[in-house]
Amino acid sequence: MRQSLYFLPTLKEVPTEAQTVSHRLMLRAGMVRQVAAGIYSWLPLGQRVLDKIADHVRAEQVKTGAMEIIMPTLQPAELWQESGRYDDYGKEMLRITDRHDRPLLYGPTAEEVVTDIVRNSIKSYRSLPLNLFQIHWKFRDEVRPRFGVMRGREFLMKDGYGFDLDEASARFTYQKMFVSYLRILRNLGLNPIPLRADTGPIGGDLSHEFIILAETGESQVYCHQNYTSRAIPDAVDYDDQDHIAQIVKDWTADYAAADDLHNPATCKVPDHELLTARGIEVGHIFYFGTKYSTPMKAAVSTESGGLTNLHMGSYGIGVSRLVGGIIEASHDDLGIIWPKSVAPFQIALINLKAGDSACDSAANLLYKQLTSSGIEVLLDDRDERAGVKLAEADLLGLPLRLVIGPKGVAAGTIEVVERANPSNKREIALSDALGFAVEWVKR
Amino acid sequence: MRQSLYFLPTLKEVPTEAQTVSHRLMLRAGMVRQVAAGIYSWLPLGQRVLDKIADHVRAEQVKTGAMEIIMPTLQPAELWQESGRYDDYGKEMLRITDRHDRPLLYGPTAEEVVTDIVRNSIKSYRSLPLNLFQIHWKFRDEVRPRFGVMRGREFLMKDGYGFDLDEASARFTYQKMFVSYLRILRNLGLNPIPLRADTGPIGGDLSHEFIILAETGESQVYCHQNYTSRAIPDAVDYDDQDHIAQIVKDWTADYAAADDLHNPATCKVPDHELLTARGIEVGHIFYFGTKYSTPMKAAVSTESGGLTNLHMGSYGIGVSRLVGGIIEASHDDLGIIWPKSVAPFQIALINLKAGDSACDSAANLLYKQLTSSGIEVLLDDRDERAGVKLAEADLLGLPLRLVIGPKGVAAGTIEVVERANPSNKREIALSDALGFAVEWVKR
Repeated sequence: MRQSLYFLPTLKEVPTEAQTVSHRLMLRAGMVRQVAAGIYSWLPLGQRVLDKIADHVRAEQVKTGAMEIIMPTLQPAELWQESGRYDDYGKEMLRITDRHDRPLLYGPTAEEVVTDIVRNSIKSYRSLPLNLFQIHWKFRDEVRPRFGVMRGREFLMKDGYGFDLDEASARFTYQKMFVSYLRILRNLGLNPIPLRADTGPIGGDLSHEFIILAETGESQVYCHQNYTSRAIPDAVDYDDQDHIAQIVKDWTADYAAADDLHNPATCKVPDHELLTARGIEVGHIFYFGTKYSTPMKAAVSTESGGLTNLHMGSYGIGVSRLVGGIIEASHDDLGIIWPKSVAPFQIALINLKAGDSACDSAANLLYKQLTSSGIEVLLDDRDERAGVKLAEADLLGLPLRLVIGPKGVAAGTIEVVERANPSNKREIALSDALGFAVEWVKR
Repeated sequence: MRQSLYFLPTLKEVPTEAQTVSHRLMLRAGMVRQVAAGIYSWLPLGQRVLDKIADHVRAEQVKTGAMEIIMPTLQPAELWQESGRYDDYGKEMLRITDRHDRPLLYGPTAEEVVTDIVRNSIKSYRSLPLNLFQIHWKFRDEVRPRFGVMRGREFLMKDGYGFDLDEASARFTYQKMFVSYLRILRNLGLNPIPLRADTGPIGGDLSHEFIILAETGESQVYCHQNYTSRAIPDAVDYDDQDHIAQIVKDWTADYAAADDLHNPATCKVPDHELLTARGIEVGHIFYFGTKYSTPMKAAVSTESGGLTNLHMGSYGIGVSRLVGGIIEASHDDLGIIWPKSVAPFQIALINLKAGDSACDSAANLLYKQLTSSGIEVLLDDRDERAGVKLAEADLLGLPLRLVIGPKGVAAGTIEVVERANPSNKREIALSDALGFAVEWVKR
């Protein structure tokens, strides 16, 4: 993409309304704009990141056997009356009345809708297990939306729902989701820490939240330092129950709790091995048995001929929240440092002297070659001062920067610098740039 | 995808609530389920089609230089008060009040939001032209939702917005969108007909709707028969103003009007060349000048130093409606006939005798080979009668069907049939099946 044609309204001033670093950087980098309190538009750069995160989530969920669907944002109140949550759910639920005075609501979650689909569609144990997810917009009418997209009112979430014949099968589904969440967060360049969690309004008796460490996190986390270095297998066989159970066991062996569940009396971790840090919750999984299937009469016939209520769990990842979370976990004083896997473009190709014919032809040629190789490049071809371009590249945080300038072009060289290691700046031969960049992006 | 594991709740009975063939077929094929009047969930098969259509729309829009964003579904009323549409828009607008008693609405369209973004982000003519689109959910509170997803209340739409310095530039943007819409609809396997249209509540003086012919269409269309065979160039250079203008000229040279604008007095088409048919509106484009930029004060500085209001257009395609529209245009008595470009899977691979070891190994091997070649295959590996499987394959309408049965496997053959040409059924060597299928899908 040529930056001269790209809609990328960066801001030089630090927006005063933004209290957290990710909110400030997302506004400054032209990723989002607020439309109303806690409601944002995603501009092209932000939309690309959102899309990439969603793709990672989708790819790993599909590997577990989960299938993607799309449920509506607006739901009829009657389904929530059936489950008993309509009155319980407080003012965070946005309640709506349509032109025929029928009560609707903007779904904060979709247990009721998906249970309704499943109870009407499957009748037999042979159709189980079944795992359905969507990546879709939700609304929670937070009394005080803040931290930009991290605690917005309208937000993009992956919400998945597992349906199993019995508790044993449902717990295996839960464990698959546990492992899948570790994989997803690792693929996004993050170090996840799973914490045993309260189940809250979703209900049930088994729940973990997945947090990532960041100074600005809302929760205080107490965990064994092992969590920061524990391996997540690259190749996971989601059909192998023992393999999955072992990963979960490894990842829950050590102490880990957020402030609400932390208990110094039961925490046996020696002080020098205890990590105390701030964390951001980015995922939450629940097993809640028949909490919804019982009132909603979602049952299937069993092998022996009877009827049994479905065992269910629900599995959420905050996709739009992750955009902010990743920035909170990965930035410096100059701007964002995108992990390669979610960067809106892989390469910032900067033409320091747009208008200079030698610089232009070198930049244009390399741009064409890189894009033909399937690499996403943002070419800064604008008529701006070199200092402005370099500062903006720092702000945008694309992983690899290639800088073309008049001196380098005359000498047949190009400057290469990784955003994550700015001190490792070097000149390479212009003729090697394509090969170097392709190799670097693949690595 | 193995059908034994796929959530595909087909219906044998014809649902009584469905009046149109696409609605019936989408329910029967397990693509959608109604959640409330005019509000649907998209099950895995339907979600795949929706995604494919969205991808085609996105790919062709990006070629024009348009950039993807995501605006929120909920919008603050104040922006619509500013444009003057808040009171004009009737009961089709779903009005909402949040917990702080602030008026919101579920966006039926997004001229106001996008104008607000642009007026706050660009200041100079040098940032123009600018074309932003989203593929996102909208809500129109239709008094009588019907025809399934064709006239639902919550629907997926691509809505794009062009911003130009002056009318000439905006008209070129309009023409690019005109050509892009022809290309998109052709890529979806459809024959679009552009009709000069009324501008309605969007406003402006120039508008075309794009319809596709289908017996169940809501509009009566009168047009020259040339429209059914007119070529759309495969390679379009969206930067070439003359080239684009010529395509628009060719495509508007002959008479074409819907019933509301049809005038037998001005229609000079001889009777034997006049096509009178039913059509479904799937796209609508508008140029409306400064209708929104004037009240909303969206202006940029000009080259000569003054300020000028932006010239705007808006460009919509009904993505979820197209799913129904394509089925209306392409089905037979047995079921759907998917065009290759939007089919949820390219190939139905049917194992007529699941459980028979020779059939199972032939089917599994071919399934693996096809999927490794990047082809989307739905393998019917269920323990069902052959007749049930073949009837369901007709219903689902995947473009190419490969049938493995005990006799064929013994003789080393496989049956091949195209869904669109069921009479052209033939046996080919099992060993040729992979090569044949790969070739057929590419073709």
